[in-house]
Amino acid sequence: IVAHKDTPRGIHFRRAGPRQKVYFASDDVLACIVTCGGLCPGLNTVIREIVHSLGYIYGVTRILGIDGGYRGFYSKNTIEMTQKLVDDIHKRGGTILGTSRGGHDTMKIVDSIQDRGINQVYIIGGDGTQKGAAAIYKEIRKRGLKVAVAGIPKTIDNDIPVIDRSFGFDTAVEEAQRAINAAHVEAESAENGIGLVKLMGRYSGFIAMYATLASRDVDCCLIPESPIYLEGEGGLFEYIEKKLKENRHMVIVIAEGAGQELLDEKNEKDASGNKLLQDVGMWLSHKIKEHFTKLNKFPITLKYIDPTYMIRAIPSNAADNVYCTLLAQSAVHGTMAGFTGFVSGLVNGRHAYIPFNRIIEKQKNVVITDRMWARLLSSTNQPSFLEPNECEEVKKSSERHNTDEPGLKMQHLIFIQQK
Amino acid sequence: IVAHKDTPRGIHFRRAGPRQKVYFASDDVLACIVTCGGLCPGLNTVIREIVHSLGYIYGVTRILGIDGGYRGFYSKNTIEMTQKLVDDIHKRGGTILGTSRGGHDTMKIVDSIQDRGINQVYIIGGDGTQKGAAAIYKEIRKRGLKVAVAGIPKTIDNDIPVIDRSFGFDTAVEEAQRAINAAHVEAESAENGIGLVKLMGRYSGFIAMYATLASRDVDCCLIPESPIYLEGEGGLFEYIEKKLKENRHMVIVIAEGAGQELLDEKNEKDASGNKLLQDVGMWLSHKIKEHFTKLNKFPITLKYIDPTYMIRAIPSNAADNVYCTLLAQSAVHGTMAGFTGFVSGLVNGRHAYIPFNRIIEKQKNVVITDRMWARLLSSTNQPSFLEPNECEEVKKSSERHNTDEPGLKMQHLIFIQQK
Amino acid sequence: IVAHKDTPRGIHFRRAGPRQKVYFASDDVLACIVTCGGLCPGLNTVIREIVHSLGYIYGVTRILGIDGGYRGFYSKNTIEMTQKLVDDIHKRGGTILGTSRGGHDTMKIVDSIQDRGINQVYIIGGDGTQKGAAAIYKEIRKRGLKVAVAGIPKTIDNDIPVIDRSFGFDTAVEEAQRAINAAHVEAESAENGIGLVKLMGRYSGFIAMYATLASRDVDCCLIPESPIYLEGEGGLFEYIEKKLKENRHMVIVIAEGAGQELLDEKNEKDASGNKLLQDVGMWLSHKIKEHFTKLNKFPITLKYIDPTYMIRAIPSNAADNVYCTLLAQSAVHGTMAGFTGFVSGLVNGRHAYIPFNRIIEKQKNVVITDRMWARLLSSTNQPSFLEPNECEEVKKSSERHNTDEPGLKMQHLIFIQQK
Amino acid sequence: IVAHKDTPRGIHFRRAGPRQKVYFASDDVLACIVTCGGLCPGLNTVIREIVHSLGYIYGVTRILGIDGGYRGFYSKNTIEMTQKLVDDIHKRGGTILGTSRGGHDTMKIVDSIQDRGINQVYIIGGDGTQKGAAAIYKEIRKRGLKVAVAGIPKTIDNDIPVIDRSFGFDTAVEEAQRAINAAHVEAESAENGIGLVKLMGRYSGFIAMYATLASRDVDCCLIPESPIYLEGEGGLFEYIEKKLKENRHMVIVIAEGAGQELLDEKNEKDASGNKLLQDVGMWLSHKIKEHFTKLNKFPITLKYIDPTYMIRAIPSNAADNVYCTLLAQSAVHGTMAGFTGFVSGLVNGRHAYIPFNRIIEKQKNVVITDRMWARLLSSTNQPSFLEPNECEEVKKSSERHNTDEPGLKMQHLIFIQQK
Repeated sequence: IVAHKDTPRGIHFRRAGPRQKVYFASDDVLACIVTCGGLCPGLNTVIREIVHSLGYIYGVTRILGIDGGYRGFYSKNTIEMTQKLVDDIHKRGGTILGTSRGGHDTMKIVDSIQDRGINQVYIIGGDGTQKGAAAIYKEIRKRGLKVAVAGIPKTIDNDIPVIDRSFGFDTAVEEAQRAINAAHVEAESAENGIGLVKLMGRYSGFIAMYATLASRDVDCCLIPESPIYLEGEGGLFEYIEKKLKENRHMVIVIAEGAGQELLDEKNEKDASGNKLLQDVGMWLSHKIKEHFTKLNKFPITLKYIDPTYMIRAIPSNAADNVYCTLLAQSAVHGTMAGFTGFVSGLVNGRHAYIPFNRIIEKQKNVVITDRMWARLLSSTNQPSFLEPNECEEVKKSSERHNTDEPGLKMQHLIFIQQK
Repeated sequence: IVAHKDTPRGIHFRRAGPRQKVYFASDDVLACIVTCGGLCPGLNTVIREIVHSLGYIYGVTRILGIDGGYRGFYSKNTIEMTQKLVDDIHKRGGTILGTSRGGHDTMKIVDSIQDRGINQVYIIGGDGTQKGAAAIYKEIRKRGLKVAVAGIPKTIDNDIPVIDRSFGFDTAVEEAQRAINAAHVEAESAENGIGLVKLMGRYSGFIAMYATLASRDVDCCLIPESPIYLEGEGGLFEYIEKKLKENRHMVIVIAEGAGQELLDEKNEKDASGNKLLQDVGMWLSHKIKEHFTKLNKFPITLKYIDPTYMIRAIPSNAADNVYCTLLAQSAVHGTMAGFTGFVSGLVNGRHAYIPFNRIIEKQKNVVITDRMWARLLSSTNQPSFLEPNECEEVKKSSERHNTDEPGLKMQHLIFIQQK
Repeated sequence: IVAHKDTPRGIHFRRAGPRQKVYFASDDVLACIVTCGGLCPGLNTVIREIVHSLGYIYGVTRILGIDGGYRGFYSKNTIEMTQKLVDDIHKRGGTILGTSRGGHDTMKIVDSIQDRGINQVYIIGGDGTQKGAAAIYKEIRKRGLKVAVAGIPKTIDNDIPVIDRSFGFDTAVEEAQRAINAAHVEAESAENGIGLVKLMGRYSGFIAMYATLASRDVDCCLIPESPIYLEGEGGLFEYIEKKLKENRHMVIVIAEGAGQELLDEKNEKDASGNKLLQDVGMWLSHKIKEHFTKLNKFPITLKYIDPTYMIRAIPSNAADNVYCTLLAQSAVHGTMAGFTGFVSGLVNGRHAYIPFNRIIEKQKNVVITDRMWARLLSSTNQPSFLEPNECEEVKKSSERHNTDEPGLKMQHLIFIQQK
Repeated sequence: IVAHKDTPRGIHFRRAGPRQKVYFASDDVLACIVTCGGLCPGLNTVIREIVHSLGYIYGVTRILGIDGGYRGFYSKNTIEMTQKLVDDIHKRGGTILGTSRGGHDTMKIVDSIQDRGINQVYIIGGDGTQKGAAAIYKEIRKRGLKVAVAGIPKTIDNDIPVIDRSFGFDTAVEEAQRAINAAHVEAESAENGIGLVKLMGRYSGFIAMYATLASRDVDCCLIPESPIYLEGEGGLFEYIEKKLKENRHMVIVIAEGAGQELLDEKNEKDASGNKLLQDVGMWLSHKIKEHFTKLNKFPITLKYIDPTYMIRAIPSNAADNVYCTLLAQSAVHGTMAGFTGFVSGLVNGRHAYIPFNRIIEKQKNVVITDRMWARLLSSTNQPSFLEPNECEEVKKSSERHNTDEPGLKMQHLIFIQQK
């Protein structure tokens, strides 16, 4: 089995795909699938394709759905997954298995896996979920069970490291256009109209950045990776005033995790703990209105749109459907070949198997010294919110980006233990 | 000129359409168009069709757009409306003229009309706007100006009396489906998931009612016309609990004006004047979460979606495009024939001219003793929130609905004064 | 039971709705549903709502689906229709029951109804299907069976008389906009570009007319009710040449039944019987290209789009969903009350029961002397293709339209025979 | 200037992006943009972003649009491209510049460039267009003009070599889903229903392949790269019969260039030269109907959908909008830096400049021995249409794919000649 050589700077992952030797006999397989965390377009497609790949390619007939996330392993009945049941689900948003946050109890879950005789576990979920998957995998190794554990990383924010993009991201960027268009229309139709759209992105601004680049109607994009300040020279208020004078309207996109440092400050000052203002979109709406009321130069009209749930709940688009299909097929090929403790992901355009530890150890962020953010700045003309010396640093580092993982060796995939 | 006879119960409006005798010579016409109030799908279509009808049917070339609502008459430059300028605008949401609330100053506006030599005024706007139009019309008559004033009633809520439906309503109901679908997917994917959608409808629940009937995924629809109570037997909380036990999820649609009596109560108690809780959707979210936390039987997951601005800002659909076209053409035919002080509207399936006073004197509401609301109740199975004696009354009155305007005489249209 | 009085010109239909007296006991009902003919948006919504109304309003549990149209009565197994089965089908296009043309064998069908003990028959289909329904109804009466037969008229073309509009029509007009937009873009991007779109409408041009009025990008709309000629003064070729000179591009919409008289002529000349040229869109494409090649003044680029199947197969939009729901509920109320031999339909804005014979005796057409066609002509500026004397006639008759059914008496609904 | 090193197997292209040294002074630049060939989603976005990049990043104000493709250089007036003119065009399909096929006359075009004083030429078009661009570039070099020529490769079929994907491809795959869905609904609703969809792809089946993988409703995908035979064992007819027996319906997707060898055969036999049958979709419809009529086992219902123009004419989706933006920005950076004779493209995930000759020398095809086609075959279960020995070869080569360009040296970019 050859390694995946052309990953940059020497990290090698095993290339995904069918193997010569199949570890599991079809009749012996009892697989289970669980979805955890928030909704993301494509969940149902991944479920469907795991079931179809197991069934049509490997002849596996016994597949269980775990109901409602991790806690479904020990507190609920399982769902029998037939080919027929999943046939049309990729056209619906959400997850037919149900999902929940938390509920991870390693011991109870591994007990349930052992007691039910499950030997393949497919876990679809984000950062926290994959950490849980790693714990399950370790406990299974400790108990010496012949059980394969495979993850399919899910995060609409696209903030999982190593892999090129996470499924659902493309659909989310597409659907975000509706909200931006609406904000643009509202802003254009009012005098000194400001359209403010909050998009997903707790720790990373990929959706906000790509949605801004795709729309071309956005005048300012605020993300968690870049600092923001509101008042003073080079601040947001100054920029808004300038834009309104020029065009009489503007559109701002803000990722939900942007400006959190300002919000926390705010919180410390305001002891009342008004939960509602924790929403950065509402907080910023309030701040902008307050500023321009105080400024008292001209009236503004601000419309705030939060399309989060409308984006999360739609079915995946064509590009994500293809991607989900390949992720699911890869996971099944890997598991059937006897690999365990890995996630299935696209690395530099190739489908690969990546050990759990590479995925969960850190987070992918928008590198604000990178070309893509530079392109965004040049397209919106917004202020960089950086001090001059920071700017200098950005220039220097513009050649260094993406080079942060030098000289790693081949990543070995773990094979199921042979007693 | 014959009257429109087949309106029920004797109110007769003049049927819209081209007339034998044209009052204005094409070269003499200087028309103006103004849009006021909130956005509504179809505004641009109405603007386009007024310009096209004046131009292509009557050869009028001098048409002005008033910028940014009523205040544009006296505080801004006008926009020259050419056929080319408006050619593609019906494919965009919003209004190319801009809009604003308020700014109505009858004297200044009529001064501007007189000074600029405008002799046809097309006013597109809702309830308040049409009241303003009536004031303008009266002042014009008082001054003895040969100026025709025509209104095109605009209200996404569909709450204008006499006319069958207002433009944009159909598009709004269609677009509301997206939000309801998203709420349904979110609710279904969580355990004890509740999807809550706030729709437009300050005083009337037409959008909420039709969106509910169209979707079939809604378990409860709350409108301003029907009382709500939360606690106790037959209350909302009891119903939610029952639904969650049955189906493990539910979807609630609430019109923005529903339950306002409860909100006001709340306000009196809470002297802090928390503005954010004035939003009925947020208020209800909070109340439901609070109740189920206190109840402590099972955890719930509530997702609240407010698609208002995303609905208002989309372009009109095909049905509304046809309707806007006919409304605009009718208004132009009427004005060119010399009528004034009327709005253009569909009455019992026929396009008609309706004097201002008939439109502005009251509001159209969902009649909760009517068939349509009964159909909704039977399709959602939600509680009626009525006391037994109220229920009785509903039964009795079910034969009487729609009969509230008996025996009115022919409505005379006013012709421009001849000096 | 009161009659529906405000129908114009004295035809009265019984108003639809729940009745005081229910004829059938819930437990005795064995209902069946059949869909026949071509696809139409909304079929699944009607099926769903019949099942839901029978189940949730009247407590009926035994409902059969007939598989694949009329021939399913005698050549296939029935499908058990549960509430769960139909719960999500309104979001899918097509019909879950399957459909076919023909296969109507009155004796075999009534035998099957009798043998299986069916006592409610819901028949969803067009003109031909409702004729079949009338035959079934007559045979049932002849045999003295206590079986109610109700039709829900289906025709995407909207050509059924008496009723205001047929379900699916609104959706079809909406979806047709895509094809027209594409034709417009293709035409605009080419020099002397012609975009030609064929829309449904075998005998009536309603879809073509409304799609044209809704789009505003169409320069010429050709329908079966209006004559067409190609060559000579006032002909189509002359108009195309004029439009191309003016705008460098144009869009033509043609209903599939338009110009059939010219096609037949063609057929007589060309004995080879080339089936492909029977398609009026292809035929016209060919004719236009031929003409401009012969003319040799300038090259043209013609793109022909036939979106028929893409329109028929989509799910119904919100407006049609509401309409389908009411049609189905009305049909169930009528049947449960013991009426038979009727269709459920909207007449002048009111839901009514209409005896079979009123529906099948003739067809609804676009009246080319009517206001709506006049509005279309004034919006496209296309030639009327009428001789001067015909034009005169049009003018005269413009006051007479819609007055073609004077003085009919109350239409009695038939009640199921009591032995 | 550093080379782009991580391209596989040693081909190196210069990485795209802004350069330290700008060759052109902003005031001296007179740029022109031309679009040629068929429509493709994203054309307007590319035009917009060239204009915006030249204007906002480099301060260039003189930009000309060439009207209607190559022939616009010498036979028409140019269009002045302002920032305002292009501001909203990315939301419209087609190209605002117009396009045409052919009209390439190198001498006349270079004369026009020279006479008008144009010094930057942006050429957006497919294979043939880029060949023309190369000829223009050579003639310009021959004449010693200081004119930069840059191409942006356009092909909805995605069949341009070297680059990862062409703009508009993603949108086309997405939009193709509508047609496939419609075909699926039509097929499912009929007994033995066959839905046949023709998609773009004259020489390569990428759209058909990805649309099939994205949809999961397709039972058979036919592309130019894979042989087809209809009759006999392992042939298409046998497969159709098997599928209909299993599922009662099926969906076939065919690329327009598939099976051309059979069509040509057909042509030789049939001397009548029936042009209409050259359409492979119609031809296959006809063949399938003929076969099953002859077979006379069961009736089939075939619906043929050709969505080509409806796909080509839509605006680009979010992913393509981002991609078009980057392509255009790269082209402008390269040209402003003084490079010439290159196209802007994505190579292995990096934006690069590629000399003309690398693009036009051959075509990109679906490699039927590659993983992606294997995934498709395993997802549709369709026959491979290969002889056993061909199958063997496929197996062997499955490790070799993508390795067809070993050991090429650094590709030098040409700099504008310095006299």
